[in-house]
Amino acid sequence: MRTLTVELGDRSYPIYIGQNLLENAELLTRHLDSRQVMIVTNETVEPLYLDRVKAALEDRQLATVVLPDGEAYKTMDSAMTVFDVLLARRFSRSAHLIALGGGVIGDLTGFAAACYQRGIPFIQIPTTLLAQVDSSVGGKTAVNHPHGKNMIGAFHQPKCVIADMSTLHTLPARELSAGLAEVIKYGLIRDPEFCEWLEANMDGLLARDADLLAQAVERSCLNKAQVVAADERESGERATLNLGHTFGHAVETGLGYGEVLHGEAVAIGMCQAADLSRRMGWLTEADVSRIVQLLARAGLPTVPPDSLGADGFLEHMAVDKKNIEGELRLILLKQIGRATLPMPVEVVRLRETLETYGRN
Amino acid sequence: MRTLTVELGDRSYPIYIGQNLLENAELLTRHLDSRQVMIVTNETVEPLYLDRVKAALEDRQLATVVLPDGEAYKTMDSAMTVFDVLLARRFSRSAHLIALGGGVIGDLTGFAAACYQRGIPFIQIPTTLLAQVDSSVGGKTAVNHPHGKNMIGAFHQPKCVIADMSTLHTLPARELSAGLAEVIKYGLIRDPEFCEWLEANMDGLLARDADLLAQAVERSCLNKAQVVAADERESGERATLNLGHTFGHAVETGLGYGEVLHGEAVAIGMCQAADLSRRMGWLTEADVSRIVQLLARAGLPTVPPDSLGADGFLEHMAVDKKNIEGELRLILLKQIGRATLPMPVEVVRLRETLETYGRN
Repeated sequence: MRTLTVELGDRSYPIYIGQNLLENAELLTRHLDSRQVMIVTNETVEPLYLDRVKAALEDRQLATVVLPDGEAYKTMDSAMTVFDVLLARRFSRSAHLIALGGGVIGDLTGFAAACYQRGIPFIQIPTTLLAQVDSSVGGKTAVNHPHGKNMIGAFHQPKCVIADMSTLHTLPARELSAGLAEVIKYGLIRDPEFCEWLEANMDGLLARDADLLAQAVERSCLNKAQVVAADERESGERATLNLGHTFGHAVETGLGYGEVLHGEAVAIGMCQAADLSRRMGWLTEADVSRIVQLLARAGLPTVPPDSLGADGFLEHMAVDKKNIEGELRLILLKQIGRATLPMPVEVVRLRETLETYGRN
Repeated sequence: MRTLTVELGDRSYPIYIGQNLLENAELLTRHLDSRQVMIVTNETVEPLYLDRVKAALEDRQLATVVLPDGEAYKTMDSAMTVFDVLLARRFSRSAHLIALGGGVIGDLTGFAAACYQRGIPFIQIPTTLLAQVDSSVGGKTAVNHPHGKNMIGAFHQPKCVIADMSTLHTLPARELSAGLAEVIKYGLIRDPEFCEWLEANMDGLLARDADLLAQAVERSCLNKAQVVAADERESGERATLNLGHTFGHAVETGLGYGEVLHGEAVAIGMCQAADLSRRMGWLTEADVSRIVQLLARAGLPTVPPDSLGADGFLEHMAVDKKNIEGELRLILLKQIGRATLPMPVEVVRLRETLETYGRN
């Protein structure tokens, strides 16, 4: 087992990465300082892993909330379901939550933990590659609003993250690819060597070589942990983690939540951001096709959906929370392995990418 | 104008106390670093003060949400209304909220500000005595849940608080008294001289002598600011601010939100806490009747409602968020002007107070 620490002063926490960690009761209970524990999971993960986690918690006063699977359930209504059960069970402000599932469960459970009685501790057990490398690190929690993703949320750090590689064996191929989108992102924004490593090892990752996956998760978490430690509240470098996300959010909002996976939308968005970076004179055409190719090899879409035109993109990008009062700011690439901070982009130039990149 | 600073490191903020502050456009805009501003208020306050605040903000992109008046509207639904309008107006994460109203508006608006895009700045303009001395100081925000008050919330400090004594001229007598309950509380928990001052000046306060009110607000805010600065997250002394609140919450929950004012419930609760403190051997009978008398002079109820028996109290106290896993912890008084930290209380002893104090 590898242990990384996210350095955040008195809110620092460990990320445990390894095989068969859910069988390790000591690890599961190491950070649980309460008799009252609620596990929040979804209908897909429940039959696979819930019993394993419960087995470690037999001596606790245990509650479980099982939500339907999918981004469509990352809502305030789902959070209210969690609050309802917490209060019906009379769980106090010393109760702990456990998020057992992917990014939706992690974000939602973290948000519920942030708000229940003004904040209770929680533990992340991410069961998807995406959640292991992205939403479980950094303390961002949120639910969606019909008018935008993650519009209602909080910063709330977990007590620990337990990333069990074994849970990736049951992950659908499409979701594995979606996770690889974020893995590739870390390479693109700040780790050119990792980009090369990914190009060399993509076939093994897709074949779910456990050791390669653990290395990829560790390197991704290390990159994210470094960024978050330097900039917890996203005033500087942390914003670079949003490479491709403003485009991606527009894809998700435009198609409706659940039609496209978050990682897929981000993959498309990173291609668009690369194209725009080329138009700024920073990337070469060869750079752009190297990026597109790596994402394609990971099994990811690389062109925007036909149904979402340039106007559709602009409409959905305008409400994105990275904007500052209507000015459109985007993360671009200075080179492969080096992202810009959010920078104002002229709509005219953005339109060129939206109208031509990936459009026949 | 008097200015107090709540010392919280990089989240420190000023409290401005004085007459006719809403006419002072420079003061209103001093901490508004955004073109996008939303005022949240209620139907009672809107006709009285909204235009004055709007006048100072003519050059801003202004949105207004007017909620119905009352604790019954301190709900997630009301918070969602705020989010709906913020998103419909495409307000960014640099937008500012202004809470114009009493404690309900302040708590709700603060919670919405804490969660919108994971946190945006807000300004408190409390228009009731209670909000001026209590909910506007300390960064506690929340909405109610059908199973308990303030069960969903966040810690989120305002940019500033503007306490305009002029707004107290329109306050109903019952609400003035409710505010005085919290004012008296500061004397009881940590400021015996202030208790004596209140006994000497209660008639003038009830007659709304502006200078006396300003002094009472300043001394109250100073006491609360000192407590909050020493203990922002309520792990120690801050809990003493909850004197009477566990009893009081039971009164509010038992009678249904809106039947009794928060300050009235706290007044009853402080009398019960005083009675229990006498049973512990800390207060004399004379101390208890001095406390009851001061509250009664302030126009407050001092006995629990007949409809809520000891069992009803216990049921509603058990879910209170100050509990630690079912153990009942209460703030009591060692003497007038000195509160205990939350201390475990035997239910047997608590029952004696619940069954005998104020019961004929």
